[in-house]
Amino acid sequence: MSPARVYLDWNATTPLRPEARAAMLAAMDAVGNPSSVHAEGRQARRFVEDARAVVASAVGAEARQVVFTSGGTEANVMALVPGSSRKGGAPLERLIVSAVEHPSVMAAGRFSPEAVTVLDVDRNGVVDPARLRELLADKPPALVSVMAANNETGALQPIAGIAEVVHEAGGLLHVDAVQALGKISINISELQTDLLSISAHKIGGPKGVGALVIGDGLTGPQPLLRGGGQELSRRAGTENVIGINGFGAAVKAAVAALPEMAKIAELRQILEAGLRQHNDVIVFAQDAPRLPNTILFGAPGLRAETAVIGFDLEGISVSSGSACSSGKVQPSHVIEAMGYGPELTRSGIRVSLGWTTTESDVERFLEAWKKLAGSLIKQSDETEVERF
Amino acid sequence: MSPARVYLDWNATTPLRPEARAAMLAAMDAVGNPSSVHAEGRQARRFVEDARAVVASAVGAEARQVVFTSGGTEANVMALVPGSSRKGGAPLERLIVSAVEHPSVMAAGRFSPEAVTVLDVDRNGVVDPARLRELLADKPPALVSVMAANNETGALQPIAGIAEVVHEAGGLLHVDAVQALGKISINISELQTDLLSISAHKIGGPKGVGALVIGDGLTGPQPLLRGGGQELSRRAGTENVIGINGFGAAVKAAVAALPEMAKIAELRQILEAGLRQHNDVIVFAQDAPRLPNTILFGAPGLRAETAVIGFDLEGISVSSGSACSSGKVQPSHVIEAMGYGPELTRSGIRVSLGWTTTESDVERFLEAWKKLAGSLIKQSDETEVERF
Repeated sequence: MSPARVYLDWNATTPLRPEARAAMLAAMDAVGNPSSVHAEGRQARRFVEDARAVVASAVGAEARQVVFTSGGTEANVMALVPGSSRKGGAPLERLIVSAVEHPSVMAAGRFSPEAVTVLDVDRNGVVDPARLRELLADKPPALVSVMAANNETGALQPIAGIAEVVHEAGGLLHVDAVQALGKISINISELQTDLLSISAHKIGGPKGVGALVIGDGLTGPQPLLRGGGQELSRRAGTENVIGINGFGAAVKAAVAALPEMAKIAELRQILEAGLRQHNDVIVFAQDAPRLPNTILFGAPGLRAETAVIGFDLEGISVSSGSACSSGKVQPSHVIEAMGYGPELTRSGIRVSLGWTTTESDVERFLEAWKKLAGSLIKQSDETEVERF
Repeated sequence: MSPARVYLDWNATTPLRPEARAAMLAAMDAVGNPSSVHAEGRQARRFVEDARAVVASAVGAEARQVVFTSGGTEANVMALVPGSSRKGGAPLERLIVSAVEHPSVMAAGRFSPEAVTVLDVDRNGVVDPARLRELLADKPPALVSVMAANNETGALQPIAGIAEVVHEAGGLLHVDAVQALGKISINISELQTDLLSISAHKIGGPKGVGALVIGDGLTGPQPLLRGGGQELSRRAGTENVIGINGFGAAVKAAVAALPEMAKIAELRQILEAGLRQHNDVIVFAQDAPRLPNTILFGAPGLRAETAVIGFDLEGISVSSGSACSSGKVQPSHVIEAMGYGPELTRSGIRVSLGWTTTESDVERFLEAWKKLAGSLIKQSDETEVERF
């Protein structure tokens, strides 16, 4: 019998939590459309509104501030619309994004490319608020988008400090907290965030559900989907009742389970220590505060795509950077932004742990790495030789 | 014991089909992200691609032509983007929509209001292709959006004839087939449709899932959600794997069940005959070919919102026009477009039948109507008197 598979790609997607599964099953019996006024409609509406209250409370928001979307990408695209402002302020027509944002933020929503400025990061992938202040100085106020935690490295950004700088300059701050939610505490008041994106499938909810949390006192963002009064007219379309109810249950369970992250962080430390025994290994963003469950490592010349397949054949699931760009033989824009050269930008292997990860999983991973490392790095060297 | 509720609001949303429920349960175990290359990712990908093949085949399309969305509204908004064209043709910057379209089409997507022309309809809510030809003549070619079947009245549009006129004039045709799918046969080749919107929850799949089917040889539509390679780069964001798998199963079951529509049409006839016994009752679009399961009726002075609540208290779910606008005390733009005056535009009660509807349900409805009709119409008269 072959051993059970070891799933170490929790940042791409997590298994559905039992609580989310149960909530989805319950909502499957809600026949009605939440916009209908009859009993069946009201039942469906209740599922959506109960979930909204839970999601709001998890991030320190009010229910009315939560707009359910089809996921983190839609939430990001919805946030990145020109013309938003603090009520009474001038509409913001400039966008500043950090160089390590998720592709859906790098794509800049509905801003034209010339309206976008990219904010560089340091060797650990972290934004310097002072550098942001320079970009904001003597220019019209901007919408600024900086993620709470990086999806590849897990590096945390100094969001509260960034918010201060953004607000001093009359701008608004959007925070993509998709990767951070459920791993660290996220509170829109503490972070002073105007717009916050979150997603269900990173915390044990279903794929295809997320939310944009919109701070009070904003004009905008203009809706992406129009033609229906749902979500207080901020997002038209019949709600994903089953998915939203699963999202609510997952958020509740994930927040309750936050203390378990300490145990996961210990496992991550063991894994990281094991990896460091190989001289060539680089742990990206190693000097930054990071998510407790995430590590991105590489080695000169190593090709992450080959490594991911090698691990898969050993029964272990890891990722080459973000799932959105895996499969493509492209350098990681995150590793590039941290200032590494081409011998490393395609080498990033992301290992991410979750609530079912055990010490034995970590051992299995390290054994596989021991077995694969030599040939992966050697093979990569040969590939390089062949290519030049 | 109170009798079981009678659900006659199938056009707002249908109960989840057992096949869809089973498919969703199966997909709940797909841990992976469909963009991940490891075994778990490939398993999730398989669910999505199997569903895509089923959905494509149901409308006579190829799998690569199907873009999964978060529902009919997103599909409509995605279709209605300026700049699409037949490959090599000029980008279309004008939009023509019929006057009875769903609110998400009336909102015109990303076209500016001045670029939109509304095409009127006859007393039955049907478009005249000759009238469309006049609107298209001597002007730059347009994107034209006409629904297959109206969501309030069930009236069918002469799509093939409309397509001929649109294409003669060098335009493209978008068809919102959300309400038609699963009730009549829909085939993009027969209908000569360039863009087709469909939705899962109208056919027994989950809410929050739909698709835009894009004909071959088109440039565009420009994606609404960017920043990820999913859906052949036409719609970024992690796929709603559970919902999409439910959609596939629902489409398969709905298409297989199309012959059962004959039985549903018979029940609709009985219901309609019963309603007509009341002298004041008007059946909207009565002289048009209609969906087999739908009837929209009214009476001078009757207020649909009051009627819906009255039926609900009798244990019967019906709708005031479309779910998207129910709850709001607004006249139906569909009834208005058919040329009826204010004594009727707020009176439309939609009754829609489905696969579990029985003759006894129809009898229950007619009994309730008999009980309510007098007071509803009288009450409405009094309301009117009070208001003036």
